[in-house]
Amino acid sequence: MSHTAEIIAVGTELLLGNIANTNAQEISESLSTLGINVFWHTVVGDNPIRLKEALDIARRRADILITTGGLGPTYDDLTKQTICEVFGKPLVLHRDILEEIREFYEGTVHAPMPENNTQQAELPAGCVIFENPVGTAPGCAFEQDGVHVLMLPGPPHEMRTMLRRHALPYLRALSSEIIVSHDVMTFGMGESFVDQLLHQKMAAMSNPTLATYAKPFEVRLRATAKARSQEAAEAMLAPVVEEVRAVLGPVVYGVDVSGLAECCFAHLLRRGLTLATAESCTGGLVAEQITALPGASKIYRGGVVSYWTSVKQGMLGVPQEILDADGPVSEPCARAMAEGARRITGADLAVSVTGVAGPEPDERGVPVGIVYIGLATPDGVFCRCVDTGKRQRSLLQGLAANHAFDVVRRYLTGLPIKL
Amino acid sequence: MSHTAEIIAVGTELLLGNIANTNAQEISESLSTLGINVFWHTVVGDNPIRLKEALDIARRRADILITTGGLGPTYDDLTKQTICEVFGKPLVLHRDILEEIREFYEGTVHAPMPENNTQQAELPAGCVIFENPVGTAPGCAFEQDGVHVLMLPGPPHEMRTMLRRHALPYLRALSSEIIVSHDVMTFGMGESFVDQLLHQKMAAMSNPTLATYAKPFEVRLRATAKARSQEAAEAMLAPVVEEVRAVLGPVVYGVDVSGLAECCFAHLLRRGLTLATAESCTGGLVAEQITALPGASKIYRGGVVSYWTSVKQGMLGVPQEILDADGPVSEPCARAMAEGARRITGADLAVSVTGVAGPEPDERGVPVGIVYIGLATPDGVFCRCVDTGKRQRSLLQGLAANHAFDVVRRYLTGLPIKL
Repeated sequence: MSHTAEIIAVGTELLLGNIANTNAQEISESLSTLGINVFWHTVVGDNPIRLKEALDIARRRADILITTGGLGPTYDDLTKQTICEVFGKPLVLHRDILEEIREFYEGTVHAPMPENNTQQAELPAGCVIFENPVGTAPGCAFEQDGVHVLMLPGPPHEMRTMLRRHALPYLRALSSEIIVSHDVMTFGMGESFVDQLLHQKMAAMSNPTLATYAKPFEVRLRATAKARSQEAAEAMLAPVVEEVRAVLGPVVYGVDVSGLAECCFAHLLRRGLTLATAESCTGGLVAEQITALPGASKIYRGGVVSYWTSVKQGMLGVPQEILDADGPVSEPCARAMAEGARRITGADLAVSVTGVAGPEPDERGVPVGIVYIGLATPDGVFCRCVDTGKRQRSLLQGLAANHAFDVVRRYLTGLPIKL
Repeated sequence: MSHTAEIIAVGTELLLGNIANTNAQEISESLSTLGINVFWHTVVGDNPIRLKEALDIARRRADILITTGGLGPTYDDLTKQTICEVFGKPLVLHRDILEEIREFYEGTVHAPMPENNTQQAELPAGCVIFENPVGTAPGCAFEQDGVHVLMLPGPPHEMRTMLRRHALPYLRALSSEIIVSHDVMTFGMGESFVDQLLHQKMAAMSNPTLATYAKPFEVRLRATAKARSQEAAEAMLAPVVEEVRAVLGPVVYGVDVSGLAECCFAHLLRRGLTLATAESCTGGLVAEQITALPGASKIYRGGVVSYWTSVKQGMLGVPQEILDADGPVSEPCARAMAEGARRITGADLAVSVTGVAGPEPDERGVPVGIVYIGLATPDGVFCRCVDTGKRQRSLLQGLAANHAFDVVRRYLTGLPIKL
């Protein structure tokens, strides 16, 4: 039997925008691996009338309700009381839990327990207790009229610990299926083109499913299967991933990798090669993305941010003739920058980026969005020119950095450099 | 009259836990500055039946509904259609918007527009159109039976741009009072210390108010006043900002600036000075943050990402004796890196960062989190050593970059370099 869950987060700080509802994200991600459908997230403040309304709505449309927050000792922590009212259950004081909280105060805080902590030791009659090893408020779960209600604390580290130790085992016992997903990562084709190529296939699928997710510069395709075992799910997913690869071709750069930087990192590591960078319009973004990966020093030697033309000439040795005849945003300059970076760092490969990030065209009239990527290698120098369009500066820089990694990736995998 | 808002985020990726609902957080934070109460967040998947249910519930309990997501070109983007069904409004094709989308494809993507993009040019009859300068899907707003419905796109950068340019002005016009905020930006003091120094004052205030927001590396204090006019609000805020400055002293780096990079940019521009960078553990992050600002070429010449020790020596001229005796993560190395970057770029100032980003201590046993910042200036070379603690790599790199900018800022404003 398939279950439907609603996650209700309780806390005025969420409605004021002080924090994001990362608890709902984390619980959702865990529930999807159990094959439990999460159809709703609701956020409500520390207000018993609106919380009661949320619970009344949720119990009609879901058979698993998971609340976070409102289990603490203060007067506006009212989740348990309100749930008991809605489900007609009495609260029962657990003297052993009260004793533990009192000991915590005396042993750790070195102060007598404030009396309002007593309510943390009161739990719905007949519930399963979820211990809280990293805080004082225990959680709990009960089932009534076919609806399971699970109460977890609000602080993310307490919620996470209790979710893993208690809530997930409780929920796993309700289901006999598991869910497995794989992400096929693509760069170089817009979401609507990907959608057009795969729409018919996606629409006809039910298990496994396939869906597109647009990220700022790339499109991710997630294939998901529900089955009795990991092996069965993998067997259902393998042909889907293969077909996506076949339909989309070289724009697919990997499966279950975080991005193009990680993809290049893996290829470089496997081949025992090192990389250097020479960046103008991306201003260090390519270097930053590669060095954000732990262990980057195994494959990345360093680079130059040649923002001023004098730096392109002085540090990278771009010839004055190229700067005069072609200008700093040109194919010859991109090639010379990459060659210079390769020479001075001694790296096997060096990638360069020069372009116009805006807001104005450059002094020679090259329009905003034109970007040249150079790649110096033992097999010669390659170049890609792209028109990234007149976008917001940060988007243009991000897209240019992705093109730089895509050029490296295509060289390392023997694909044509041009898109 | 006071308004009540509900934010409805549409997207199966939220229910699968692939992303957190940061849009709801950002909208909530903005609405609270307008004095609009947000009482509910709801998340629903790309499913018209459940979206219809969410809208039916929301229109009964709120008079401002803000949706995010589901405005894109694919077949599961159904927000506009479903809202029109619930509110009984027809969709109208806007030929001028269709033309713009078509031009975007031809001019930027260099491909004919896929036909499924047509639905992005269809909007509810009689709505106010919100242009989308960073994407193709426009948003919109209409009022019906006293309920205002605003539709914003799902990708966070598109949502944010449209919120600031269109949705907030639309909502501001619904109220006769205006709300003005100023953000006092601080670096170098933890949130609980800031809170301790200002707690009594904050608790005693009602209009204007003062609240702290902890960001990953800094604390922002937001002073907010509600008044009949801009002038009246400004008059209420000025003494609050002054008092915060007086209490916190030199950890305050500016008011209403986006971050330390922008603060340094402004000081350099005013003084007519240029900057260079030499980065090891931050791997280009300092350069990237400064070049993310439009007009960066006026104050930033360029820099080196000296990830390998050979690059520190070869490109920056760090003496072999320093690398042997003190190692690459040391005060002498930080000083030599800054001097080298200043010399080879000809910049007035050069800032360097060398440290251990982890996950392992360096080969000389310097522990994860130790970072040296060097600053070469016409007045000599300065250095700050910080222990950023054993944090996640990205947090450590971000904090180290902020220290680099803070050293530059303190030099330019005549403050002591040491914290």
